[in-house]
Amino acid sequence: MSWIKVVGMGPGEHEMMTEQALAALDEADVIIGYTVYLELLGERFSGKELLSTPMKQEVERCRMCLEKASSGRKTAMICSGDAGIYGMASLMIELAEEYGMTDQIEIIPGITAASSGAAVLGAPLNHDFCVISLSDLLTPWELIEKRLRAAAEGDFAIAIYNPSSRKRHDYLQKACDILLETVSPDRACGYVRNIGREGTEHTVCSLAELRDTSVDMFTTVFIGNSKSRIIGDRLVTPRGYII
Amino acid sequence: MSWIKVVGMGPGEHEMMTEQALAALDEADVIIGYTVYLELLGERFSGKELLSTPMKQEVERCRMCLEKASSGRKTAMICSGDAGIYGMASLMIELAEEYGMTDQIEIIPGITAASSGAAVLGAPLNHDFCVISLSDLLTPWELIEKRLRAAAEGDFAIAIYNPSSRKRHDYLQKACDILLETVSPDRACGYVRNIGREGTEHTVCSLAELRDTSVDMFTTVFIGNSKSRIIGDRLVTPRGYII
Repeated sequence: MSWIKVVGMGPGEHEMMTEQALAALDEADVIIGYTVYLELLGERFSGKELLSTPMKQEVERCRMCLEKASSGRKTAMICSGDAGIYGMASLMIELAEEYGMTDQIEIIPGITAASSGAAVLGAPLNHDFCVISLSDLLTPWELIEKRLRAAAEGDFAIAIYNPSSRKRHDYLQKACDILLETVSPDRACGYVRNIGREGTEHTVCSLAELRDTSVDMFTTVFIGNSKSRIIGDRLVTPRGYII
Repeated sequence: MSWIKVVGMGPGEHEMMTEQALAALDEADVIIGYTVYLELLGERFSGKELLSTPMKQEVERCRMCLEKASSGRKTAMICSGDAGIYGMASLMIELAEEYGMTDQIEIIPGITAASSGAAVLGAPLNHDFCVISLSDLLTPWELIEKRLRAAAEGDFAIAIYNPSSRKRHDYLQKACDILLETVSPDRACGYVRNIGREGTEHTVCSLAELRDTSVDMFTTVFIGNSKSRIIGDRLVTPRGYII
């Protein structure tokens, strides 16, 4: 049996990792991940063999992990947030099939931005919700549009990941325009920047205001459902208790 | 300023809590929560003032928390999973408005069953997904049906919370029948029982098989999207990398 773990490290700081995740990284001989995440690990893991590949070489990074583990090294792949939410868990299991190692991959969950961002904003996801990424690198934009329309149709609260990038600076605006086809412009919304890192900032606003806001790639956006409201500087989606 | 934190404790065991959550409970004078969760805390916090109210008295429990904090005691409200996903975060902020304390409530996120259950199953939520609770205690069943239809329409992966209870033994079956209106009976699915506690069990199956399965209230159910597949005993929703 190989020792191979895919570890969700949460938003970044150690205190937002689970004890299970920290223990896995303590035990690992090799830690593999995107360079920025390796840097977030800091001093505590500086004695390990730390390996990376450039961005967009996720397949190569996962193969590197499987090869290292096959050679007998305890190998951990780190992902920001949760390993299984836009993380490397699925690709690792898919590739492990080639190596006959699917049953040897252990997934260790982490706090995803839907949870950590919601905590900063208040409680925007405290009822049924959707998580949608606006990145069309791996997903056709038409499917993203379809999901935005379905989320609005179902009156879900929504967490939006990857709302922007250098090449996709107007995607949040496009997404808001799709929601505005059926959702009121005064729908309660909010967004959080730099979750769990230095300089965390949060803002509450209406959907109409969000449409005209520029956010960067370090931002997670939250759209309330029809019952959500802004209380002070918090965004709250009620669970339904009569108070 | 009062000291008042709403803490997500994850599925149960300490090792699945974040360091931030454990530190908050270590610092608290008073810990309030549903009795079962207080018991899960164990020895480490037995020196604290531990308070509870019976089930369904969530409003009273939150008021108790706000009163204790107002009286100057460092008070933590615990929730299973994430504080802001079907947890007490929203109700606490709503009630805190009456006390002029909305800006004093700190929410500490935890690992929700969507993440912890997904990790056991493999990677069922590794693309856009919805979280839907089948509990109609606080939500009209018609709205739950509408959301299930919207989730299927949007080809989301789905995590289903509260799939069953003594009074709602056929709700998962009803939910599957709604999905089966548009989704293929061989859609890849799975479920996990007793996540993060002793006797964790997971099963993969088709949607047709899931429809005829009885699950209990300690189970979280996962429905794949149209690209999901079963690999060995894991349920995997690909992110879209070409391999």
